[in-house]
Amino acid sequence: MLSPKSVLITGCNRGIGLEIVKQFLQLTEPPKFLFACCRNPVAATELNAIAESNPQVRVVELDVVKQDTIEKAKLLVASIVENEGLNLLINNSGVYVPIGLVDVTREEMKRHYEVNAVGPLMVTQAFLPLLKQAARQHPTDPLSCSKAGIINISSGTGSISENSTGGSYPSRTSKAALNMITSNLSLDLKVDGILCTAIHPGWVKTEMGGESALITTEESVKGIMSVLEKLQGEEGSGKFYHGFKGELIGW
Amino acid sequence: MLSPKSVLITGCNRGIGLEIVKQFLQLTEPPKFLFACCRNPVAATELNAIAESNPQVRVVELDVVKQDTIEKAKLLVASIVENEGLNLLINNSGVYVPIGLVDVTREEMKRHYEVNAVGPLMVTQAFLPLLKQAARQHPTDPLSCSKAGIINISSGTGSISENSTGGSYPSRTSKAALNMITSNLSLDLKVDGILCTAIHPGWVKTEMGGESALITTEESVKGIMSVLEKLQGEEGSGKFYHGFKGELIGW
Repeated sequence: MLSPKSVLITGCNRGIGLEIVKQFLQLTEPPKFLFACCRNPVAATELNAIAESNPQVRVVELDVVKQDTIEKAKLLVASIVENEGLNLLINNSGVYVPIGLVDVTREEMKRHYEVNAVGPLMVTQAFLPLLKQAARQHPTDPLSCSKAGIINISSGTGSISENSTGGSYPSRTSKAALNMITSNLSLDLKVDGILCTAIHPGWVKTEMGGESALITTEESVKGIMSVLEKLQGEEGSGKFYHGFKGELIGW
Repeated sequence: MLSPKSVLITGCNRGIGLEIVKQFLQLTEPPKFLFACCRNPVAATELNAIAESNPQVRVVELDVVKQDTIEKAKLLVASIVENEGLNLLINNSGVYVPIGLVDVTREEMKRHYEVNAVGPLMVTQAFLPLLKQAARQHPTDPLSCSKAGIINISSGTGSISENSTGGSYPSRTSKAALNMITSNLSLDLKVDGILCTAIHPGWVKTEMGGESALITTEESVKGIMSVLEKLQGEEGSGKFYHGFKGELIGW
């Protein structure tokens, strides 16, 4: 059963992040602490409404490209979870602008990389002591998202082996880099009892995915939650899942 | 037979780049124009000596993180190759500092990405009209490095599927991104008759690889040259080769 006591999610103001918050609240055992991060809490109207009626939800300012907001969020979370640590970190925030070879610029390459790859890595680095603390609470349990896990919301476009259309250079390269980070974290943190896996949410009807997308946010996140639940043991770490289909994607 | 009329190589002041220049000069049919690029031509003593005794070698200033040097190099090359275009671009320059999860910084992530991924992409974008021009000279020939090709000198550490040790975040992520760029370029440029493949040079005794490395620069580049020769047709594009072993590496 998926039952992390504490969860932190980035990019919760809308879309997939917001829906992940909602579906975590619907679990049989919802988290005791749900840190719903976004860049600008004041403008996150729907998220604030959820937090008002669900005391375990805490809206936290966190911009993955601003290290000071990461550090502040870390101190806040540490002061709340105390010795229990943080069970689950979901690096969800991301950016996607389709830009092909002729139009791609240095600036867009760097911007996508900072948000989609460097950001999740720096957030993970900051929250690592809290994830390790959570893992130490149940040293003999197998790896799982309820014990201690890092989930990177990646994209199918980050798969090199399944690339068949080209284009979208800034997005594809930054998501391939995020996939490498996922693989690396799974290897580096196995000894600490922390799982790390990447999930492709599918092509989702969000502001990012557009109206032509194939699935709703609810359907996408339902798939993601199913994957989170089934990730167990070393087999569940260092993988790249299609959340909606529940199948592995090649790197 | 490997016989591109014109070749441009980045990072030729030392190591693998310098050796690629030497081995191109030893071909049965050496290039008519060999543009050996480096950041600081004045300091490239050995390269300048080669250029003095080989008139087809032109030492060109090009720093992959400085767009103005790329543009200047492009104008120079265009004025020399004229209507024949550029047959082969070898994106060789790169940076490697092993930095693990605890020590990794935003700055090192960005620096590696700019040199190892964004740089090669921007160089490719700039020289694309010249590569297309070369491809148009032989419209019915199959893809090859003698007709029109882009070779990205990647690294085995950029393979996600063969990652078994973790660590080296800035290097691994930037090389995974370069591999995605390779895949993308092979798909985007097939219609133009341009090949694009990535090559891992092996662990080489250079300033970057250190003294414990497994093979000499000569051995590495001999392997790379063999791969360049055998890349033929659509099968030769969009691949990731171990240059020394001559075998495919998984993404």
